[in-house]
Amino acid sequence: MIKPRTPPGVMELLPREQIAFQRMLDAIRRNYERFGFLPVETPVFELSETLLTKSGGETERQVYFVQSTGAIANARSADGAAEALPELALRFDLTVPLARYVAEHEHELTFPFRRYQIQRVYRGERAQRGRFREFYQCDIDVIGKDALSIRFDAEILAVIHAVFSDLGIGKFTVQLNNRKLMRGFFEAQGITDGEQQALVLREVDKLDKRGADYVRETLTGPEFGLAAEAVRKILEFVAVRSSGHADALARLDALGQGSETLNQGIAELREVLALVKALGVPESDYCLNFSIARGLDYYTGTVYETQLDDYPQIGSICSGGRYEDLASHYTKSKLPGVGISIGLTRLFWQLREAGLVAGSEESSVQAMVALLDETQLADSLDIARRLRAGGINTEVQMEARKLGKQFQYASRAGVRFVVLAGEDELARGAVTVKDLLREQQFEVPRDELASSLKVELEQARALAGR
Amino acid sequence: MIKPRTPPGVMELLPREQIAFQRMLDAIRRNYERFGFLPVETPVFELSETLLTKSGGETERQVYFVQSTGAIANARSADGAAEALPELALRFDLTVPLARYVAEHEHELTFPFRRYQIQRVYRGERAQRGRFREFYQCDIDVIGKDALSIRFDAEILAVIHAVFSDLGIGKFTVQLNNRKLMRGFFEAQGITDGEQQALVLREVDKLDKRGADYVRETLTGPEFGLAAEAVRKILEFVAVRSSGHADALARLDALGQGSETLNQGIAELREVLALVKALGVPESDYCLNFSIARGLDYYTGTVYETQLDDYPQIGSICSGGRYEDLASHYTKSKLPGVGISIGLTRLFWQLREAGLVAGSEESSVQAMVALLDETQLADSLDIARRLRAGGINTEVQMEARKLGKQFQYASRAGVRFVVLAGEDELARGAVTVKDLLREQQFEVPRDELASSLKVELEQARALAGR
Repeated sequence: MIKPRTPPGVMELLPREQIAFQRMLDAIRRNYERFGFLPVETPVFELSETLLTKSGGETERQVYFVQSTGAIANARSADGAAEALPELALRFDLTVPLARYVAEHEHELTFPFRRYQIQRVYRGERAQRGRFREFYQCDIDVIGKDALSIRFDAEILAVIHAVFSDLGIGKFTVQLNNRKLMRGFFEAQGITDGEQQALVLREVDKLDKRGADYVRETLTGPEFGLAAEAVRKILEFVAVRSSGHADALARLDALGQGSETLNQGIAELREVLALVKALGVPESDYCLNFSIARGLDYYTGTVYETQLDDYPQIGSICSGGRYEDLASHYTKSKLPGVGISIGLTRLFWQLREAGLVAGSEESSVQAMVALLDETQLADSLDIARRLRAGGINTEVQMEARKLGKQFQYASRAGVRFVVLAGEDELARGAVTVKDLLREQQFEVPRDELASSLKVELEQARALAGR
Repeated sequence: MIKPRTPPGVMELLPREQIAFQRMLDAIRRNYERFGFLPVETPVFELSETLLTKSGGETERQVYFVQSTGAIANARSADGAAEALPELALRFDLTVPLARYVAEHEHELTFPFRRYQIQRVYRGERAQRGRFREFYQCDIDVIGKDALSIRFDAEILAVIHAVFSDLGIGKFTVQLNNRKLMRGFFEAQGITDGEQQALVLREVDKLDKRGADYVRETLTGPEFGLAAEAVRKILEFVAVRSSGHADALARLDALGQGSETLNQGIAELREVLALVKALGVPESDYCLNFSIARGLDYYTGTVYETQLDDYPQIGSICSGGRYEDLASHYTKSKLPGVGISIGLTRLFWQLREAGLVAGSEESSVQAMVALLDETQLADSLDIARRLRAGGINTEVQMEARKLGKQFQYASRAGVRFVVLAGEDELARGAVTVKDLLREQQFEVPRDELASSLKVELEQARALAGR
């Protein structure tokens, strides 16, 4: 006998939690589709040579390789082969597979290509609370051929807004910045080298933990050697958070005119802000945050982060940005794009830790037909059949257990309606419904059962704002 | 530059095909949920010791092992470790993970435990047309603790029926048999050993390919040494296909009385048939087929196969059955169950080969707002916002390209409605809609756009019977 164990570092859910998780996945997908994004799925593994194009960074050290039994045996018998990398590796994000997909199918796709992809990715992280080796990413990207209008950057923000409004996990703010604006600003402070900018930003990131004095001392100290005035300007710059649409525009005005790069960054943010407003995103739900950098070697224009206002410690729950070229490793075509990613496994875990996902939501099973007497099984099955035909997810009690047990089962499972068809009711062509949510009971003609439960469920959905 | 290539042996789809695939996945899930099954997802890999409990059969030779970069390096530096199997392996079906899940979470689950699981599984098959190394399985199982009523076997058949009715891929028949009935029958012919029964059935399976004479000669020949009369009875038995409910019962009557095992098999099939009828499954859609055996070492009672009537060469598209004990490797609890599996990747591939999935279905994008003039972008975005709020999946043309190009884009993408908002129309508070499906054009007040498209889409859905 082997002790049954989930592998370490993965999130496996009980059914009630899985239903809550699935509702979130469904909401994300629904909103991605609402904005006209098309589904793509790629295999869980890619050829190793495809996946590992970049010179090995942190990600590469975390790659999982995949080998069939035969390949392992071959590698062991032939000394030379043992040194080669396995042929396949699990994807560590959805961006590399997207690049490979778009490059491979370039001539079969229509551009701008708008795709969503919701799949799991794999990283050999050190096992640690809240770190996952397998987790969902929910990505959208718009990929242009040769060029892609800045207007899509605004649409992406509207998608983020629609998703998190629908998820209903509390007030959130989508934070915007622009890499060109950042680069222009840093260059004006005499920091022209990209890597040096990255190092300065890494120090700035320590503001919350170490305080302004520490950061100021480091940046003016021997390692960086920046002038006190430049450091003052940098700290002022990265502290900018706009409040409302007019303030956002004023913050951009305040930067004045500068290098071409700076001016371009400002112009791009202006256009994005204007369209975000035209798209009907409430101004309380987005702001400028000049400290947002994201992947410095990848993003080149707009960058996004999203914060839950009441849970800033969770960090960004949806991030992304604009990049120059998606698939330069695989094709000579220039494929600029803009996209975002939601790491749902980690978000779900954090929401659960914060008590925001109770796992006590209603089940996906909406009704249970109780069985009062063995002789009534055929009636039960018929009632269930009509409920299902009417679009109600229905379970039947297949054995006439004690009624108390049947109710206990329904209640534990989060089923809202228990349908009882006793002899008297059946004779009257009626059934009794116990609404476990509202703690009410009512009788309804057998023919009208499905439609009346549907009305109740739709009312509940309307109340929940879904 | 690296040539972008999908790994061999997987099915990767273009967006239009992916939409068709996704619709099938959604229909399967919808019907599983309709019958009250709860979602479960397990990690893509299991601990190798968990996955490989059985003494290595065909499946075990096809297992993919998973290793992090660090583990590979360690194995290479330490000679001893190199002999050990990698810690993780990709799941090759959803049954072993279910067994591990139920055994591990036994005390947190309510029994009978009804779960559905729709995930991909992995097998290191030899690369071959129509054989996949990664494919979706869509499973349901009902697991009892200590015992599970035969009634669930009927419900499972009703689920199969609901799924394939909803998928709308043509007339199908769910075929039923019972392992006890088979065992009883074979024992009566003097074949008492289970393995010998399996060998005889394997020969019987060659009927279609080799013909009755060949099979008769083999079974009466030196290898099997069966009496001619026994072989005659066997060939008569396995040829049984019932036609309609009354005929199914008559076929069971015709078997008469026999051993306890045979009688029990007959009684079980009778009960299943009675409840299948009570569940409203039309009698034209199920039958008895006494040749169905399925996994002989696993199933112990009811077994199911499902055939597309017009495409018998596709083979069974949904199979399963009743088993005695799900998780004997992991727990002492007795967990009998009944379940089925749909291998959707292979089915989709076969349907496409047969021309039954055209990949030309409507897109998930339902409307596209064309952009006639750069100055009208804000209006376009507002129209799109209202469409989306009204539940219509909508894409906006972000640049005022030539109108012909915009229509071409919509048509290629399978978008049904193109919304045009010219200056005149906007002044009248109206928009023009081109219905590319019906090749019609109509004008509608801007405020009523979403609701009028919704009506059109619901009509189409009702016509398609969805």
